[in-house]
Amino acid sequence: MNKRIVFYTVGRILQIESLLMLLPTAVGIIYGESSWIWLAVSAAIAGLVGFCMMFCFKNCDRTVFSREGFAIVALSWILMSAIGALPFFLSGEIPNYISAFFETVSGFTTTGASILTDVTTLSRGMLFWRSFTHWVGGMGILVFIMAVFPSESGRDVHIMNAEVPGPMSGKLMPRLRDTAKTLYLIYLGLTVAEVIMLLFGGMNLFESLVHAFGTAGTGGFGIKPDSIGSYSPYCQWVITAFMLMFGINFNLYYLILIGRAKSVFKSSELWFYLCIVGVSITAIAVNISSLYGSLSDTIRHSSFQVASIISTSGFSTVDFNQWPELSKMILIVLMFIGGCAGSTAGGLKVSRIMLMFKTVKRDLRRMIHPRSVNTVRHEGKPVDNETISSVGGYIIIYMIIFFIVLLLLSFSGFDFLTNFTATTTCINNIGPGLGAIIGPASSFAAYSGIYKLLLSLTMLLGRLEIFPILLALAPSTWKRK
Amino acid sequence: MNKRIVFYTVGRILQIESLLMLLPTAVGIIYGESSWIWLAVSAAIAGLVGFCMMFCFKNCDRTVFSREGFAIVALSWILMSAIGALPFFLSGEIPNYISAFFETVSGFTTTGASILTDVTTLSRGMLFWRSFTHWVGGMGILVFIMAVFPSESGRDVHIMNAEVPGPMSGKLMPRLRDTAKTLYLIYLGLTVAEVIMLLFGGMNLFESLVHAFGTAGTGGFGIKPDSIGSYSPYCQWVITAFMLMFGINFNLYYLILIGRAKSVFKSSELWFYLCIVGVSITAIAVNISSLYGSLSDTIRHSSFQVASIISTSGFSTVDFNQWPELSKMILIVLMFIGGCAGSTAGGLKVSRIMLMFKTVKRDLRRMIHPRSVNTVRHEGKPVDNETISSVGGYIIIYMIIFFIVLLLLSFSGFDFLTNFTATTTCINNIGPGLGAIIGPASSFAAYSGIYKLLLSLTMLLGRLEIFPILLALAPSTWKRK
Repeated sequence: MNKRIVFYTVGRILQIESLLMLLPTAVGIIYGESSWIWLAVSAAIAGLVGFCMMFCFKNCDRTVFSREGFAIVALSWILMSAIGALPFFLSGEIPNYISAFFETVSGFTTTGASILTDVTTLSRGMLFWRSFTHWVGGMGILVFIMAVFPSESGRDVHIMNAEVPGPMSGKLMPRLRDTAKTLYLIYLGLTVAEVIMLLFGGMNLFESLVHAFGTAGTGGFGIKPDSIGSYSPYCQWVITAFMLMFGINFNLYYLILIGRAKSVFKSSELWFYLCIVGVSITAIAVNISSLYGSLSDTIRHSSFQVASIISTSGFSTVDFNQWPELSKMILIVLMFIGGCAGSTAGGLKVSRIMLMFKTVKRDLRRMIHPRSVNTVRHEGKPVDNETISSVGGYIIIYMIIFFIVLLLLSFSGFDFLTNFTATTTCINNIGPGLGAIIGPASSFAAYSGIYKLLLSLTMLLGRLEIFPILLALAPSTWKRK
Repeated sequence: MNKRIVFYTVGRILQIESLLMLLPTAVGIIYGESSWIWLAVSAAIAGLVGFCMMFCFKNCDRTVFSREGFAIVALSWILMSAIGALPFFLSGEIPNYISAFFETVSGFTTTGASILTDVTTLSRGMLFWRSFTHWVGGMGILVFIMAVFPSESGRDVHIMNAEVPGPMSGKLMPRLRDTAKTLYLIYLGLTVAEVIMLLFGGMNLFESLVHAFGTAGTGGFGIKPDSIGSYSPYCQWVITAFMLMFGINFNLYYLILIGRAKSVFKSSELWFYLCIVGVSITAIAVNISSLYGSLSDTIRHSSFQVASIISTSGFSTVDFNQWPELSKMILIVLMFIGGCAGSTAGGLKVSRIMLMFKTVKRDLRRMIHPRSVNTVRHEGKPVDNETISSVGGYIIIYMIIFFIVLLLLSFSGFDFLTNFTATTTCINNIGPGLGAIIGPASSFAAYSGIYKLLLSLTMLLGRLEIFPILLALAPSTWKRK
């Protein structure tokens, strides 16, 4: 393990965080709030820590193997959250540091679970920073996916599957930077489009920005106690559409950009995603039809909540904890599915679910016709056995972690529904759970410090797709070669 | 598909059921109950249907391929339950046929979930038949495991993994019959031992027999409203010990019989099973210590419930639905684990859980040291990749079915805990769930007919380890070659 390069790189990432914090500082100054000083102080701390780390470890071997990659990813997310929590804590707007840490992890992991019982007590600068962490986290994870993680379709398997020798800034970065740049532009473009459309709907610039950040990162931090409930139907529909769009694989937007829009319609993952959305909206609309006055209200609320949950955003227009059991159960299933691979959404991802079903179908067919040859195909291409078993392995480790967290959480004494949906909503990076305690109309404030830390870890595990965090926690990762 | 051999073999199995029904008929006659006539009538129906099937299809090709094997297994369990439900229905003791079917499926699958709100209304003959289905089901599944299913350790993979040409009564049966005979003897011996020990505890012969049947099959049908709660601590401890013993791989008893007792202690599955039991008993005892008067009561109730749930029996001495959340959560986790492979217990099985953890550990190690060679070992032997991926595949299809059943069950409108534990308890063949509706102090009577059928199917899927039922439902299984 080359520890020096790990700390050096994390230092650089903290310097970026320092720069990012200047934006909410400016917001605080514009609104004439005293809290801007704490944002500035925190930015200075991030910059200083980052500078020290880079200075101390600048004489490092620039070789990055898979272990270093995992360590960098895990450590930078944890440190960014630890320092990102400072403004809330130092300003006293969230007086408890662990709560502030939970809130920041929830922000960066684009979960959107909050410990605030009344979000309106925060100053504008803090609200901006809180939502901005969603946008940074959503952007970050896209880049990390491209740069560090293997995708199911076999792209970018470098660091994860095999040791990649060579300097990080030399051989690897040019191509990855190109990819990353394109993705940033798409991300930025879609965010700006949403801001403009929300401005048309009567939101002011501040509101438009924070909600666009929450949508783009599929995070879901709102600035009102009823989330999006008190905005106009137009705004709700705009956010519904953008939540669904940010749950789609960004490669499809890239295909549109380079003029290959036709091939977008060949994406079976997109169709499957839209099918799930369509069926869920219809089923819930029928199930809740007696609750709302008009058909249009029913469809709007059903669509908004389905889009919010499957894209793992977590905004809400109504308290869906009051819905009938069937609708709640559909939402729980959507929580596990999540968005498409290569999007900013969390969850297991649509393509994994599809591969799971296809593999099961192949196995069943094999049992009836043992001598037949059956290949699993995805997006028109045959999928090799290694990919299939890595998907299976991921789902199994995901289930193991799910049950361990659930078991530990039951020490809290809360009821099964609360603990089950708290685990579900954190590991899948959604936000609100179900039940009176953590439902859309409540917050995670009721959980005490130790459970907030456990759930913070769960959010990080879910966001980074488990392995980097687990490996960074394993002592053998940190041993010398 | 050779349909003729399927129907012929199922006919033979129904004839065996007919003979088995004579035993409860005799019990009814001994106790001078009028209900014996309905048991006799049902026995006659089973015999007649079986005879007709054998007669109509006697001129069949005796070749059994994997498809035929699955169809025989699935069809015989369904038909045995359909006819086994007749005594309850014809006598009017369970006036609704679907409820009677649910009760019988619950019996044969050794689940022990009941629709009876007051079990004492049943006559002795019916109570005997109800518990006897557990014993038959437990015995049956052992034989089916040996004869039809692949085991994780690579034994008996014939029919499942490859087509097995040749007549069923020729090439395959001698060795399988030998195995089956030994297992029957162990099963019978342990059951007799339990009956004797319960007689010593003051139970009468009838009580001893029905409880031994319920323990041996890991079923859990009792004959009192509080299950085992009103029996003496001695009887409770005897049943605790035997529940744990029937959750152990029967091969270990075989090893003892042939004088290789030493190698029993080398079974890592056994140790892991005992560890889980020990840790769970301790944790629950600490958690519930304030509920019961003395330490001995606390340990007895904790041990009984842990043994009952991990062995998937479902007997109870207390209403554990009243226990604190942590204890309930531990029981839910135990429900999924289940007993050892090759026992009469349900659940995912300890060896599958072990293999899951070992595979995850290997995958993590591979990520840190991509070039290292890591083999998963189980019981001292290396496990091939095909076995690992079949375990992964099983767990994934299990989760898919779990969520589909849970989603369908939520149409009932019952709360999440009820539907979740109903699915859990049925797919893992345990019996009672949690919550006020289906907890140990209640029954499944509240679910309407369609959900009883759904849960019956779920019990069968769990008991036969999913594939036979799924394949029997697939139209392509029934096509001609």
